This record gives sequence, structure tokens and C-alpha cells, in this order.
Amino acid sequence: PSRLPLYATHQVGVAGFVLNEETGQVLMVQDKIRVSLWKFPGGLSNPGEDIADTAIREVYEETGVKTEFKSVISFRQQHNHPNAFGNSDIYVVCRLQPLTSAITVCQDELLDAKWMKIHDVAHDVNIPTLTTRICRLGICGMVEGFDKVDIQMEKLESIYRGAFYKIYHRPLSDKYNYM
Amino acid sequence: PSRLPLYATHQVGVAGFVLNEETGQVLMVQDKIRVSLWKFPGGLSNPGEDIADTAIREVYEETGVKTEFKSVISFRQQHNHPNAFGNSDIYVVCRLQPLTSAITVCQDELLDAKWMKIHDVAHDVNIPTLTTRICRLGICGMVEGFDKVDIQMEKLESIYRGAFYKIYHRPLSDKYNYM
Repeated sequence: PSRLPLYATHQVGVAGFVLNEETGQVLMVQDKIRVSLWKFPGGLSNPGEDIADTAIREVYEETGVKTEFKSVISFRQQHNHPNAFGNSDIYVVCRLQPLTSAITVCQDELLDAKWMKIHDVAHDVNIPTLTTRICRLGICGMVEGFDKVDIQMEKLESIYRGAFYKIYHRPLSDKYNYM
Repeated sequence: PSRLPLYATHQVGVAGFVLNEETGQVLMVQDKIRVSLWKFPGGLSNPGEDIADTAIREVYEETGVKTEFKSVISFRQQHNHPNAFGNSDIYVVCRLQPLTSAITVCQDELLDAKWMKIHDVAHDVNIPTLTTRICRLGICGMVEGFDKVDIQMEKLESIYRGAFYKIYHRPLSDKYNYM
């Protein structure tokens, strides 16, 4: 195989799964172009932007809701995505905790945005599988604890001096981390 | 914000965490350029190649060991990586089950490759944190079951006719998946 490096092959999209645990509601937005589609708010990462920051920014831009990052709950890899111009696409769903609840719909991008009952979204046959699956993971988290479903994030120092990266994996108890 | 799509911003690298549960050994390779560095075999995804396929291919090319995909165990996001030419980098670590054990070192890329005891790697202060962390997750998996640490993969049909994608998330019991 060639030893020449490849260039960037993937765009990275991030969605915010904004779950209010007290009300059991999740923040959903309605696409302006494909009006039948209700989905999580989100969009593409800017160059150099961390996954969690993209999620928080996109949710705020699209709905005005302020949030805090909790975990990554799922990611998807897809090739030849119609919106990816021949590139591949990695789409990461972050679980976010809402800090505010009032919605201001971004009129440029969306037709509507609202809080929906997570159980309604999970059972809506018109909502794509990825979205209903995330809601089912969220319900599992609310019932059994988010430790069951979370992929946690941690910032670590790179072997390249002064550089940092973020790793994502399952929570690891101190028993194994400091053995 | 601009509505124009960005182009690909990320390269995707994949490593194989090849763990023999019976012997407690993990497959490690020694870099040719930075000879002090022992690491998991792996490399960049080819365009259109799925994460799991990259892991299996790279492990085979570098070491001759045949493997089977089990799960994703961690991923990392890093910006301005020295080997990424200004792009960002997503590096995914797959847990692979070895199907063969004999090693054939790829002389073009590597100085050496060998099976090491996972506990030795986990405690080696000369091995970068990401690698030791993965080994600790592997030890946790061997002791408590891999369900504790695995991010499982599933192939699903896209809303775009005829297209498929792969999603990765925590195992979800039927209770929630078919409620």
C-alpha cells in the first residue's frame, strides 16, 4: 500500500440530543426543505471545532436553547451521503442537558422547533430509526441510569508537546484505571 | 452562519486492539520511525471504507494476523495533528478477536510486532496514555464482561433508498428496543 498520506475523507456532523429528564421531553426541530422530517438539532463541525462544542453551538443557533455536554450517545458512519459531496460522513449524537427551555426558532434553517415527549418520538413510525433508537437509549438511561448508555469524554495531553485531544469510551472504574 | 456546506475536514484512522482472551495477550507493533513507540497496529481508512474493515485490513497488512470485528472500544478527536496536514483527526480503536496467531512483520512499515501481556502494556510508563487506557478497558472487559466496555455496531438502512449506514452505541436490551 502507498505510504503517502490521504487527505481528509470525512465530514463530521453533530446532533444534540437535548433531554429534559424532569419533563421527559426532548428538543426536536423541523427541517425547512424536507418538512415531514422532525429531527434533533445539529450541523457540521467547523474546522478545528470539538464535537461537544459543535453540538452546543448548533442547538443554540437553531433553537436558542442553552445546553451542557453530558456524553456521546451514538455515532454513525455513512459513505456517499447525498449531502456529503462524495465524502464520507461521521455523525455524532451528543447527550446534552438543557440549561434553558424557551425556544427561538432559527427562521433561516427551520420551519419549527419544539419540545416533544421522548416516548412519543421513540414510537413515531415517521421518524427515522436513528432518531427513535437514540430516544430508546435515552429512556433506558432515565430508567436504569445514564451509565448504561453513555460514552464519556475526557481531555488528555498528547505525546506531541502542548497538544491535547479528547477521548471517548465507556466509564472505567478507579479499580481498573489506577490498578 | 453560512449555509454552504463545508468539505471534508477529518481524516479517519483506525487501530486494532487485538486481544487474545485465552492468553491475555495483545498484539503490539513497533514503529519504524519512532522506534521507542510500541502501539496497536492500524492506519488510515481508504475512501469509502468502513471503520471495522480498516481495522481488520491494517492488522492483516502489518502483522499477517487475521481477525474478526467485535466492537468499538474508544475514539479520539484531535485537531492540528502533526500527521494530518492541518486537518482534524478521528482515531477509532476497534476490539478485534484474533483468528490466527502467527506474526509476519510488514518490513516496509514496522521494525517489529509481537504479542505482549495486556497487564504489562497497561502498566508500561513508556506507552502513551491512550494505549494503556484501552488495555485497562480490555482488562475490565475480561473480568466483568465486554458488555461493560463495548460500543456495539449495527448496520441500518438509510432514509435514502438503497443506502445503508452503520451506527455505534451501547447495547440496548429488547425491553427498550421493542417497547
